Amino acid sequence: MRRFTSLKVIREDKIDFVEIDYSPMNVLDEVLASDLWNYVESAQQDDDLMVIVFKSANPDFFISYHHPRYFLKQKSPESQTMLDNMHKVITTLLTWDKVTIGQIRGRSTGGGSEFIMALDMRFAAMGKTFIRHAEVSLGFIPCKGGTQLLPNLVGKGCALEMILNGKFLNSDQLERYRYINAALAEPILNNHVRKLALRIASFSKDAVRGAKKLVNQNTAFDLEAFRREQEVFNTLVETPEAHRRFRLFIDFVENYGDLTIDEPNWNEE
Amino acid sequence: MRRFTSLKVIREDKIDFVEIDYSPMNVLDEVLASDLWNYVESAQQDDDLMVIVFKSANPDFFISYHHPRYFLKQKSPESQTMLDNMHKVITTLLTWDKVTIGQIRGRSTGGGSEFIMALDMRFAAMGKTFIRHAEVSLGFIPCKGGTQLLPNLVGKGCALEMILNGKFLNSDQLERYRYINAALAEPILNNHVRKLALRIASFSKDAVRGAKKLVNQNTAFDLEAFRREQEVFNTLVETPEAHRRFRLFIDFVENYGDLTIDEPNWNEE
Amino acid sequence: MRRFTSLKVIREDKIDFVEIDYSPMNVLDEVLASDLWNYVESAQQDDDLMVIVFKSANPDFFISYHHPRYFLKQKSPESQTMLDNMHKVITTLLTWDKVTIGQIRGRSTGGGSEFIMALDMRFAAMGKTFIRHAEVSLGFIPCKGGTQLLPNLVGKGCALEMILNGKFLNSDQLERYRYINAALAEPILNNHVRKLALRIASFSKDAVRGAKKLVNQNTAFDLEAFRREQEVFNTLVETPEAHRRFRLFIDFVENYGDLTIDEPNWNEE
Repeated sequence: MRRFTSLKVIREDKIDFVEIDYSPMNVLDEVLASDLWNYVESAQQDDDLMVIVFKSANPDFFISYHHPRYFLKQKSPESQTMLDNMHKVITTLLTWDKVTIGQIRGRSTGGGSEFIMALDMRFAAMGKTFIRHAEVSLGFIPCKGGTQLLPNLVGKGCALEMILNGKFLNSDQLERYRYINAALAEPILNNHVRKLALRIASFSKDAVRGAKKLVNQNTAFDLEAFRREQEVFNTLVETPEAHRRFRLFIDFVENYGDLTIDEPNWNEE
Repeated sequence: MRRFTSLKVIREDKIDFVEIDYSPMNVLDEVLASDLWNYVESAQQDDDLMVIVFKSANPDFFISYHHPRYFLKQKSPESQTMLDNMHKVITTLLTWDKVTIGQIRGRSTGGGSEFIMALDMRFAAMGKTFIRHAEVSLGFIPCKGGTQLLPNLVGKGCALEMILNGKFLNSDQLERYRYINAALAEPILNNHVRKLALRIASFSKDAVRGAKKLVNQNTAFDLEAFRREQEVFNTLVETPEAHRRFRLFIDFVENYGDLTIDEPNWNEE
Repeated sequence: MRRFTSLKVIREDKIDFVEIDYSPMNVLDEVLASDLWNYVESAQQDDDLMVIVFKSANPDFFISYHHPRYFLKQKSPESQTMLDNMHKVITTLLTWDKVTIGQIRGRSTGGGSEFIMALDMRFAAMGKTFIRHAEVSLGFIPCKGGTQLLPNLVGKGCALEMILNGKFLNSDQLERYRYINAALAEPILNNHVRKLALRIASFSKDAVRGAKKLVNQNTAFDLEAFRREQEVFNTLVETPEAHRRFRLFIDFVENYGDLTIDEPNWNEE
C-alpha cells in the first residue's frame, strides 16, 4: 500500500484501488489536489497499470468541494498551484489510455463533480449519492471543465439545471440524466466495481488501450472551450459579490458543519 | 402586468412569468409569433431581467401548432414575417444569456415543440403533456431548427422516431428520451418551477450569465445546418402533396376540433 | 418474396420486411455479410422503397457475432471482402435516405450490434434482448464504426462500459442507456413496428427523405474516426494474444454452443 496524506492506494496486479481518505470530509484543498496529481502522474508512467478504481473512505463524502478559501485568494501561488494540479488531473484522465472507474457514495460538490465526470465510468450507491454544482450560488462558475463536461454527459437542458440550480441531485436523478452508469444497492456496488475492474484487467492490454484511445478521440475534450471557461472564471472569482458569498459559505461550514444543511442563506448581507 | 394580444407578462423582480393565453388553443399564427418576438426583443434589452418562465393559460395546449394556413401561402409577406419572427425568437433563445424555463402542460406540435426545445430547461405536467412533430405527416419537414434541435436533445434514434412517426409522445416517454428535465405531478410543478426561477434570480447576475454563455457556446446551434433545413423546407412546402395535406388538416381541425382526435385520415384523396 | 441464402425479403408496397434467417444462429460470416450488402445495394437503387424493417427468424439471435474464424485469417481475401461488405452496409445505412427500423430480439454481439446501431430506430423485445461488445475480451476492438457509433448513441461513459466490460446488457439497461428507442412486450412489438413502418410509408416520400437527409447530416458519421479505428484494428487483430483468444472462443462455441454460456474462460493458456 502506498500512502499519500489524503489517499490510500492498494495495488492488486494491474489494478490500483485508490481510496480518498482525508478527514473530516474529503475537502478538495491543496493537499488533496497535490496528492491526486502526484498519484495520477506516477500512474501515467506505470506501464503495467491498466485500471484504477477511485472510491472514498468516508461514507458521507466522495470529494466534498473545492474549498472556497482558495477562491478567496485566487491569485496566491497556493491557489494557483491547486487549480493547476486539478487541471492536470482532469485533462490527463480525459486523454490517457488507463481505465478509470468511480465507485461513488456520499456528497460531491463542484470540483468533486468535475473530477467524477472526468472518470470513464461511474457507479453510485443507490439512495446514498448526492452531487451538485454550487459554483453559481457562490458567485462564480465551474472552473475545471464543468461547463463542457456536464453538457457532454447529460445534455444542455440537464446541464443548465445542474449548474444554475445548484441543488443536490440524488442517485435516481443522476441515473435518469445518465450522469452515472448505474445506481446500485450498496451491498452490490463494491462487488460490481471490483469484478468489472478485475475483468477489464484480465483482457489484452493493447486492446483495452486501443479502445480507450479511440473513444477518447471520438468524444474529445475541447481545450479552446476550457480556456474560455478559465477566462470567465478568472474575472468572476475576483468580484466582491463572489467574495461575499465565499465568506458566507465558509462561516456556514465552520459554524454548522456540512452534514446538517446544504447551504447558507445567500441573501444575508 | 404587460398585455400582448396572445401573452400576459407578469414581472416579479428579476423574473418574467410569460403566460401564453391565446384562445381557443394557442395556435402559432402571425399574432402569437409577432408577440413572442416583440416580447423576446424587449426582454433582450432589459438588463435587470435574469429569468423567464414560459407557461400556458390553457390546460390543454402549450403551443398547439404552426397553423397550416400559413404554409399554404408560404410566399406571402404575412407567412414570411411569421416564420422570420419565430426564427428570431428561437435563435435568440439559443444564444442569449437570460435563463428560460418551460412549465409545460397540454399538447404541443411542430413549431410549438421547436419553441420548447429552444428553452434552457423543460419541466412538464406528468400524464398531461403531449408533444409531437407532425410536419412529415403534413408533407414537409420541421422548419425552425427541429432537424437539429431534436437530435441534439434526444439523440438520432429518438429524433428520427419523433420526426417520422409524428404521433404524440407522453410525459413518460419525453422524460425517458431526456426531451424534458422531469415530469412532475401537477400540484408540484408550478411550485417547483417558481422556486427554481426565484433561486436562480437570487444568484449573482454575472455568474448566471457567464455560465449560460459558456454552455451555449459548448452546445452551439449550427447556422449552416439551419440554412440547409430552410432550403429543403422551401421546396417541400410548395409541393401539391403538401398542399393536399395542409387542406385535409385544416378541414379536419375546422370540423372536429383538435381536442377530439389527433389527425385527419391522410389517405383520403 | 426474394430469397438470399441468409435473408428473406418480403415486399409490401413501399416497405421491405427483411428477415435474417441463417441457421443455426445468424452468425455474421461471408454469406450473411455478402447477402446484407447485396440487399442494401439493390435497395439503394429502388426508388419506390421507403422503409425497411430488419428482424430475425431466430428467437434467440438477431445477428449473433462476426465469426472469429475470419479474424484469425484477417488478411485473406475472403475476410477482407467480408469486412468490406459490412463497411459498405453500415456507411450506406448511416447516409442514405431510406428509413430503417430494427425489430430486435435475442442476442447480438460485436458486428451484430454495429449493424443494429447503424439503423435509424431500434425497438426490442422486453426481457428477451441482449447486446454486447465482446471485441476487447477477444483481444481486439470494434471494427465497423463501434468506437464512434456507441458513444454517439449512449454517451462516453456507457460506451466505455459496453466496450470494456463486454457482458450482455438486457433490454432494461439498453432502454435506460437510450441504445434502443423502447423495449416492448413481445405481443406488442411486431405490431408496433409494422404500424410504424406502414405509417411512415404512407407519408410523402419527399418529406420523409428530406427529413432523413437533414438528420443524417446533423449527426454525421466521421470517416476520419472510422479510418483511425481501422488502423488500430488492423494491428490488434494480428497479435498472438488476439489469436489465442479467437481460438479459445472458437473451441468454446464448437464444444458448448452459444446458447448455454456466454464466453470461454479467457485465462486458460
